[in-house]
Amino acid sequence: MAQFINGKDTLVTDAIDGLLATSGGALHRLDGYPHIKVVCRSDWDKSRVALISGGGSGHEPAHAGFVGPGMLTAAVCGEVFASPSVDAVLAGILAVTGAAGCLLIVKNYTGDRLNFGLAAERARAYGLQVSMVIVDDDIALPDLPQPRGVAGTLFVHKIAGYLAETGADLATVAQAAQDAVTDMASIGTSLDTCTVPGSPKEDRIAAGMVELGLGIHGEAGVQQVAFDGAASAMGMVLDKLAPHMDGDRHVALVNNLGSTTPLEMAVLAHALTTSQKARQITAVIGPAPMMTSLDMHGFSVSVLPLTPQREAALSHPVPMHDWPGMTALAPVTVKPLPDGLSPIQPIPSENPATRHLIETCCDLLIAAETDLNALDAKSGDGDTGSTLATAARALKGSMDRMPLADLTQLFRAVGNELSQTMGGSSGVILAIFFGATGDACASGKPTTEALKTGLERISQVGGAQQGDRTMIDALHPALNTLHIGIADAARAARTGANTTATMGRAKAGRAAYVPEENLIGHTDPGAEAVARLFEGLATTMDG
Amino acid sequence: MAQFINGKDTLVTDAIDGLLATSGGALHRLDGYPHIKVVCRSDWDKSRVALISGGGSGHEPAHAGFVGPGMLTAAVCGEVFASPSVDAVLAGILAVTGAAGCLLIVKNYTGDRLNFGLAAERARAYGLQVSMVIVDDDIALPDLPQPRGVAGTLFVHKIAGYLAETGADLATVAQAAQDAVTDMASIGTSLDTCTVPGSPKEDRIAAGMVELGLGIHGEAGVQQVAFDGAASAMGMVLDKLAPHMDGDRHVALVNNLGSTTPLEMAVLAHALTTSQKARQITAVIGPAPMMTSLDMHGFSVSVLPLTPQREAALSHPVPMHDWPGMTALAPVTVKPLPDGLSPIQPIPSENPATRHLIETCCDLLIAAETDLNALDAKSGDGDTGSTLATAARALKGSMDRMPLADLTQLFRAVGNELSQTMGGSSGVILAIFFGATGDACASGKPTTEALKTGLERISQVGGAQQGDRTMIDALHPALNTLHIGIADAARAARTGANTTATMGRAKAGRAAYVPEENLIGHTDPGAEAVARLFEGLATTMDG
Repeated sequence: MAQFINGKDTLVTDAIDGLLATSGGALHRLDGYPHIKVVCRSDWDKSRVALISGGGSGHEPAHAGFVGPGMLTAAVCGEVFASPSVDAVLAGILAVTGAAGCLLIVKNYTGDRLNFGLAAERARAYGLQVSMVIVDDDIALPDLPQPRGVAGTLFVHKIAGYLAETGADLATVAQAAQDAVTDMASIGTSLDTCTVPGSPKEDRIAAGMVELGLGIHGEAGVQQVAFDGAASAMGMVLDKLAPHMDGDRHVALVNNLGSTTPLEMAVLAHALTTSQKARQITAVIGPAPMMTSLDMHGFSVSVLPLTPQREAALSHPVPMHDWPGMTALAPVTVKPLPDGLSPIQPIPSENPATRHLIETCCDLLIAAETDLNALDAKSGDGDTGSTLATAARALKGSMDRMPLADLTQLFRAVGNELSQTMGGSSGVILAIFFGATGDACASGKPTTEALKTGLERISQVGGAQQGDRTMIDALHPALNTLHIGIADAARAARTGANTTATMGRAKAGRAAYVPEENLIGHTDPGAEAVARLFEGLATTMDG
Repeated sequence: MAQFINGKDTLVTDAIDGLLATSGGALHRLDGYPHIKVVCRSDWDKSRVALISGGGSGHEPAHAGFVGPGMLTAAVCGEVFASPSVDAVLAGILAVTGAAGCLLIVKNYTGDRLNFGLAAERARAYGLQVSMVIVDDDIALPDLPQPRGVAGTLFVHKIAGYLAETGADLATVAQAAQDAVTDMASIGTSLDTCTVPGSPKEDRIAAGMVELGLGIHGEAGVQQVAFDGAASAMGMVLDKLAPHMDGDRHVALVNNLGSTTPLEMAVLAHALTTSQKARQITAVIGPAPMMTSLDMHGFSVSVLPLTPQREAALSHPVPMHDWPGMTALAPVTVKPLPDGLSPIQPIPSENPATRHLIETCCDLLIAAETDLNALDAKSGDGDTGSTLATAARALKGSMDRMPLADLTQLFRAVGNELSQTMGGSSGVILAIFFGATGDACASGKPTTEALKTGLERISQVGGAQQGDRTMIDALHPALNTLHIGIADAARAARTGANTTATMGRAKAGRAAYVPEENLIGHTDPGAEAVARLFEGLATTMDG
């Protein structure tokens, strides 16, 4: 059992009860499990024409998912890919049909035609008005006199449903349904067959091939060709549909046959809407799963010429969320990028003390390159030293462009510089640190407090706290001691950095994925870098 | 390439443009492909708090599918499973944020946190109010200090979206979002891993196993166990969620991870709604694909305690059809079957001539059993004779129950009798024939005309016309000649039956699947049966 089911016997009844339980009371069913499986809308008063569809299961959300105001009144569900019985259909007819009569919407399969047909006959013997429309929209097999009914059935559900809901009589509803059937065309294609529960999967479609014109029960298609991408597959489908499209305003129903992902369906929608072959298509329904074939990895497109009546019917909203609505096709709107993506270039200014401080920091990091790389090799890919040294060299080279006399702008500019030269998470984290520090300066905080704000921000964004074996273990105590003096800050940073060597599993950053035994005894390279920086500054300033 | 894509490089941009083209103008994007992929709602006037989410692609419809009134203002899309860049996020922020500020809704992955975090910092430097909430709802790994963000993100989109749309300020929106994150829990399970475009598929989950607690990027779960059906899988998920559920009113978001079929998702919804473990769940969102993981064959459940504010927010309708709405869980309503399913038992009556005629017909068919079987063996499974003879014997045995003096009721009763004793398509077709004939009698038509009405109905329901190599080829000419006399009708039936031997491919019925060369030269067994019936009656009546 490779599916989320409980067994073949209860598959369809389980699924129907799942649908009912999550319908918020909008749907109910008739008694009669397991033989009779009829889903009805709960707000139905028999005052208008009833619409009944159904057939074998395995095509969800069709048909029970489309029971509700403006679409079906009831769905009669068979077992997977098997027609419901005459009794089941008759139960559905008798349950929902009033004086206005009912229309049976039946896909063109012998079993469905016969079972719905006989049920209609029996219902008529009770004096009910019953009409039936046979949907035969599949154009895959051009010389077959009995084309299959596939996803175009949804057009009928929606058009007839709208008319019935708005009070049209049976003849009008049936005629609109029949006209839609006459005018529509559908074809499907798939990369793989479907898996019928309880049966071995047929491996008919070889890897690298796509099959065109296959049925919704896994029936073989008319041809297999080498698969050449989504646009090409959509092109084949549109080529087949083209001879059936008359006039310049069509709606295309883009149907997911089961297990095609939303991402793929969106790619296929793009292929359709940008194809030159689709210039007669002005509106689209979907992409969405509407008439599936179990887990078939494929899609189908159904087309129907639009008239004002059909446009009104198809675009009218219904509460069933499985109906994706109809939207007009329009070119994609692209708006210009907003201003401000390029960081504001600061106006350079001079401050010899600040320049000296930054250059000293850079030199300290450059000097530590080899040691830090060696340390990082214990728990990572051994490049912490090089990453920091490279950024430090770049920063030194940017001094003449820096607003050295304006601390707010300087912190922001250093952040921008590091985010562009450092790469990876470290660059982003330092950019956030200096950016938030700059913002805090702008709001009037003294430098030490501003630096603490930067630390808080990277802690929030990066998710690391003191004790998580990161550079924060050195930076946090250093900043909290800095008001006493640089020497104290350096001692605090060193103590903090050394503590990381005693820590077990890292809780944030890349080292979180390294086993504890590889970490114990080794100082975190980020914390070590911070400690060396403060120690170096203390020495320089003392000297 | 086993997916409907055009290549890895254009996968995400194709999909976004497909979404935009089918949005009916509701969505647009910013310029900046391929680097900057930002989807925005088109009706946005910056008058309220903007909501921005995003992250790697491959989780569709999240997040771009949820951009619109009442949910997101913009979605910033990365490549598949890769965080969008700082510039892309910043572009999104700058494009949609007005004086009311914006909230960034970020799933808890390092890349997303950093890129959204730095973009927020840069946007703040422009004076914008930017808040950020980190969603970390995955409870799969109980001791991980940084839980992943998964489908519970949808709760945040909807709750924050509702508040922002109704004019709440940034602090209120951000606090409601943070509270929801604090209170929610999610876990996923799958029968298979996902297929990352351009990468070989990891076969981590063996056939027959199900993995619990895996991430939405295919990250391995916490355990694999033998798969024991949908109810059991749902039970495992609910067991994991139980310790995180406090209070007796929760909403459950039932999410399709990618390629689980609608049928399976309905079965899983049934499992959830009928589980004793779910008694703290009072409302449900889905089942539907909301936060997928490419084509992962799995599902996830997210739970959140309901408050009046959350209930109002989550149940408020939005126009994006990918949002399935929230419904209250209620027991499944089952209504009694309608009266009339058992055919009305006719009141028996006598008519010796009619009884004799029917018995003669039955004897003729019984006598033809062997010949008709032999004929059917040429094009079918050789049982036409036996099927008809069995039905004929049963019909003879039912004479004392038949309303022989009332032709309308008699035709209907014969139809019912045949549908119960014959089985298969033939029984249904004959039941329709006699039922429609009875209805026509009831409306006052003479018998021959009533029989023609019966023929028209089976032609409509069965889809076969004269010339399609069925019994209609004998029945149609016979009924059209019957007004002259039974001998003429018999001759017409024989001529019609013989014609079928010259027909090539059958156009209806089972013989439609038999190659032409197997049919030519052989009379259709159904047509032969009709011819023998009329020939026999002509002989009997003459004698």
